[in-house]
Amino acid sequence: MSIVIEYNSFQTTKKAPFGAVLEGTKVRFQIGVHTNDSIQQVNLHVAQDGHWDSEHKIPMTLGKMHYQTEFTPEFSGLYFYYFEVVTDKESCFYGCTDGGFGGEGVVYFQRSDVQMYQLTVINEVETIPEWYQKGLAYHIFVDRFNNGNEDGHINSPKPNSFIYGQKTDLPMYIRNNKQEVVRWDFYGGNLIGIQKKIPYLKELGVTIIYLSPIFEASSNHRYDTNDYFKIDPMLGTLVDFDNLVTTIHEAGMRVILDGVFNHVGVNSRYFNKSGEYDTIGATQSKDSQYFPWFTFTNYPNEYDSWWGVTDLPTVNKNNEDFQKFIYGGDNSVIDYWTSRGVDGWRLDVADELPDEFILGIRQTLNKYPDKILIGEVWEDASHKLAYGKRRHYLEGNMLQAVMNYPLRELIIRVLTGDLKPLEWWLELMTLKENYPDTVFRYNFNNIGSHDTQRILTALHGNKNWLKQAVGLLFTLPGVPCVYYGDEVGLTGGKDPDNRAFFPWNDQDEDLLKSVSQWYNWRTKHAWIDTAEFAPFYLSEYGIGFVYWSGDKRLVVVLNTSSNQALIKDNDFMMDVVPSEVSVEIRELFSGEVVGDFQTREWKKPERVSKDGKP
Amino acid sequence: MSIVIEYNSFQTTKKAPFGAVLEGTKVRFQIGVHTNDSIQQVNLHVAQDGHWDSEHKIPMTLGKMHYQTEFTPEFSGLYFYYFEVVTDKESCFYGCTDGGFGGEGVVYFQRSDVQMYQLTVINEVETIPEWYQKGLAYHIFVDRFNNGNEDGHINSPKPNSFIYGQKTDLPMYIRNNKQEVVRWDFYGGNLIGIQKKIPYLKELGVTIIYLSPIFEASSNHRYDTNDYFKIDPMLGTLVDFDNLVTTIHEAGMRVILDGVFNHVGVNSRYFNKSGEYDTIGATQSKDSQYFPWFTFTNYPNEYDSWWGVTDLPTVNKNNEDFQKFIYGGDNSVIDYWTSRGVDGWRLDVADELPDEFILGIRQTLNKYPDKILIGEVWEDASHKLAYGKRRHYLEGNMLQAVMNYPLRELIIRVLTGDLKPLEWWLELMTLKENYPDTVFRYNFNNIGSHDTQRILTALHGNKNWLKQAVGLLFTLPGVPCVYYGDEVGLTGGKDPDNRAFFPWNDQDEDLLKSVSQWYNWRTKHAWIDTAEFAPFYLSEYGIGFVYWSGDKRLVVVLNTSSNQALIKDNDFMMDVVPSEVSVEIRELFSGEVVGDFQTREWKKPERVSKDGKP
Repeated sequence: MSIVIEYNSFQTTKKAPFGAVLEGTKVRFQIGVHTNDSIQQVNLHVAQDGHWDSEHKIPMTLGKMHYQTEFTPEFSGLYFYYFEVVTDKESCFYGCTDGGFGGEGVVYFQRSDVQMYQLTVINEVETIPEWYQKGLAYHIFVDRFNNGNEDGHINSPKPNSFIYGQKTDLPMYIRNNKQEVVRWDFYGGNLIGIQKKIPYLKELGVTIIYLSPIFEASSNHRYDTNDYFKIDPMLGTLVDFDNLVTTIHEAGMRVILDGVFNHVGVNSRYFNKSGEYDTIGATQSKDSQYFPWFTFTNYPNEYDSWWGVTDLPTVNKNNEDFQKFIYGGDNSVIDYWTSRGVDGWRLDVADELPDEFILGIRQTLNKYPDKILIGEVWEDASHKLAYGKRRHYLEGNMLQAVMNYPLRELIIRVLTGDLKPLEWWLELMTLKENYPDTVFRYNFNNIGSHDTQRILTALHGNKNWLKQAVGLLFTLPGVPCVYYGDEVGLTGGKDPDNRAFFPWNDQDEDLLKSVSQWYNWRTKHAWIDTAEFAPFYLSEYGIGFVYWSGDKRLVVVLNTSSNQALIKDNDFMMDVVPSEVSVEIRELFSGEVVGDFQTREWKKPERVSKDGKP
Repeated sequence: MSIVIEYNSFQTTKKAPFGAVLEGTKVRFQIGVHTNDSIQQVNLHVAQDGHWDSEHKIPMTLGKMHYQTEFTPEFSGLYFYYFEVVTDKESCFYGCTDGGFGGEGVVYFQRSDVQMYQLTVINEVETIPEWYQKGLAYHIFVDRFNNGNEDGHINSPKPNSFIYGQKTDLPMYIRNNKQEVVRWDFYGGNLIGIQKKIPYLKELGVTIIYLSPIFEASSNHRYDTNDYFKIDPMLGTLVDFDNLVTTIHEAGMRVILDGVFNHVGVNSRYFNKSGEYDTIGATQSKDSQYFPWFTFTNYPNEYDSWWGVTDLPTVNKNNEDFQKFIYGGDNSVIDYWTSRGVDGWRLDVADELPDEFILGIRQTLNKYPDKILIGEVWEDASHKLAYGKRRHYLEGNMLQAVMNYPLRELIIRVLTGDLKPLEWWLELMTLKENYPDTVFRYNFNNIGSHDTQRILTALHGNKNWLKQAVGLLFTLPGVPCVYYGDEVGLTGGKDPDNRAFFPWNDQDEDLLKSVSQWYNWRTKHAWIDTAEFAPFYLSEYGIGFVYWSGDKRLVVVLNTSSNQALIKDNDFMMDVVPSEVSVEIRELFSGEVVGDFQTREWKKPERVSKDGKP
């Protein structure tokens, strides 16, 4: 059987509207079929996620040159679709390419082989606070940023802990033979230390500060909350917190806290294994008010914990009392801190939190104006399956954004040559297609966090690449977030190497200047947040993308090859100079240059290259 | 063959003088022989240590009832002897019991089975400074005693080190998978901290402070010297040192330093592996002035080191330049610090230092009045073989004392019941016999150090036993030295558990009072240092010892059984009350009581029990 099928989910001539749609939106599909066999029928097959037995088989009608039909998804969530061509000889199918990418697909001859296209359906277009839309974030791992005490003393060191001898010491875990952490290690960064660096952050161009957990805990990372209503004494007091929030707001900035609600510390006020707290914890008595929060398999020593880490007993998020404690009740954790001025929350391990729990937090946040709720998700969150269940946190009124690790991967891999320009384009387009528009546009982007290698290390120590990566972070759609210290050249592999203390006395000034310029650049080009966006690729030469809005145009091009390239199109010509990753856009365009990574305003593009979009 | 031989090296009727003698001293031997066989000849066999082929065979003559002879050792060192009885039927031999104990011996029928008695011969009677004779010492592991900074800050923390979060944290090593220490751990005790506690030590009754190493080093124990001429910056400055010495002397106390001359730190100014010092170290060039100090097996990465610990490269003590550096040259290490007021030195791993090296240090010290030189030796140092060579450091003009670990063993084992009273007596008498009189009398006694379990832990946490142990330490011959914190109940197994920080806020006041009373008791009974001394044992009931000098008598008895015992003799009667280790001396005696452990002045003893001595 010889057959050619023309379809491309990215093209609105083939599927419209592009990408995710609101439930009840009519979606048009059009395909071209070229075969010598006699076509009897062409069908669009659509199945609602999970309802595989009630797949819709929708006959397509032959128009002038194409088969077309419409489908209106009634429910939010995911739908999956593919096409079927029935000829007099046999049937064939058309679905997306292996890996689940959008765009052009492939012909399958076995139904069972078909990979289906994803259609994301939302129940409501998210509202995104203006401050967050225009926000330029900075992620602080609090113990490692700055100690604000004049004399350098460490606030209230914890029992059985270690303080690094010098701030320049590299971080390490102190483990026993069983690889268990036996003492926690601290540098002694604190809230007043952050407050004292607000001028630094303001100067850098930061408008949003995202803090790692700050509530009382045993560890240096504080993802093992011991008391949700207490600032960790090593970080300071409630007064220090209030002062910090006030200072942040007075500087025109916002603050996002890390909400860790899936588990608590084993020695928390709630679990209280060591009995440090005066409460009756779940381990101390089955009559404890906290006993129902936890799931004991063998009381009191065996219990559900996060990834089997016994230091982190998991809380049952379906427990009503816990729900009230976190968000539903009077003076809940969310209420308490949000009403003290917190502008948003990043939910740790969002995939471990039931949708209902996330919804509850969001509903509580909705009582306050202009708050943001971000989830920690590592993959393309539009189709995340967690524990066999599809997550619905991005379909409206739950998470407004997620930590955009896939974008980090795209940035690193295209710079290091792991991804060819075409692949880069395909993956980015697929994210754009799968995510609700607001999510793609305002996702919480990063090129590194406390859970990844430092970006400079991921880029093999190449500072030129680092500048390019920062350039991409700040020019791509989404809210850029810089992990503390990346702007001055901190290096390090995964945890704990990525958590070194900020090198206040040993900053890479050249890098800092470059990063600051990118913060500044994005501030000046805030219009791109609401502009149309399309990525493209330049054959073997590199990648690029274009924004347009009204008669404004902005094109960003990165030549990742070592060859010069002349890029021509109807309206413009671009000479991409060979160097590792330098970019130049010459002739015809007037505009600015920022760092090595260059951008120009650009008028009326139609196509950027024959390969690219739009 | 039926034979009974009467001999007892402890009795001056059998061998005189008792114990070690000065070279050229005539030693009389007398034995009784009872057999039905016809005795043809009785010989004393004496061999100089190592000269086994030229054993002296000295015929003994039959006096009224005994065979007797004399022998005059010409050389200092050890001699070994046994007796031979030749009858008409066969020969038999008489030597000491298995284990090398003195006192009564046993008959052997094979020459090759004979264990020989030891005769220690010295070349000179040591001079011992008066202050040391009467001294009551206290051993400070400097990092763990007291931080004297008002605000509690730690002086100059080292790079890549950890500071304990709280002073009450228990010490630990921070090791990698290969069990190598990867970061050193510090509490931050310092010299000014010691200075501030001089009133505490004075009140306790201390007159000698023995400090663990204080020169610049990488570790917390500082046995890895990096610079012999620099006070470790974490401990303070040279001014702090001078002030401390002045304060100690003004308080009527003395100070002994820990001299670590066998090896240096791998990152020392001399070896300089990490290149931290501006000197050209031995690892950096074979032209380094320090290159000849070390023994490289494969330059520069393989070299001789202490027990294979590569952090501690061994110095070649036969290197003349190193000898000059430590003691022989102008402004040697010994000169520099001794002339600044140091009253004595404790030589670390004395067995690793050649006799000539120790002699050199002693000769340098002899330039200054009233100094003391103590060696770290773990066993009965009178016959120590190290690396196959007999050590001569106790025969005069080298070491004046050693750390008396054997006495510690005797104290612990008799209290815990590991040693029967008779065994205890035998071992102690053997020490008394083997050691030169000044060494036995002024040895540097301890019941715990930084290299042993804490005494309270060794005594299974029994504080009553601890008080008894301290009582024995202070009543037995020698200079008692208390390891910091033992007086307030610190516990801990071997290194690092035995190096916890002094619990200034959690002292066992009852224990402290008891220890202070013992310091006080010994101060009041300083006359026992020069008195005659004899230990005895009380059948199954316990142990005791008696001092006499002129008409002064002091008897100490410890009932280690759980039974009451009435001890009678010509001049006294003693009712030893059953309790774990309590002692009481009742009736007939007037005197004082100190703590649980009771002593009384006692008049004219001749024998304490039929088993005991004298």
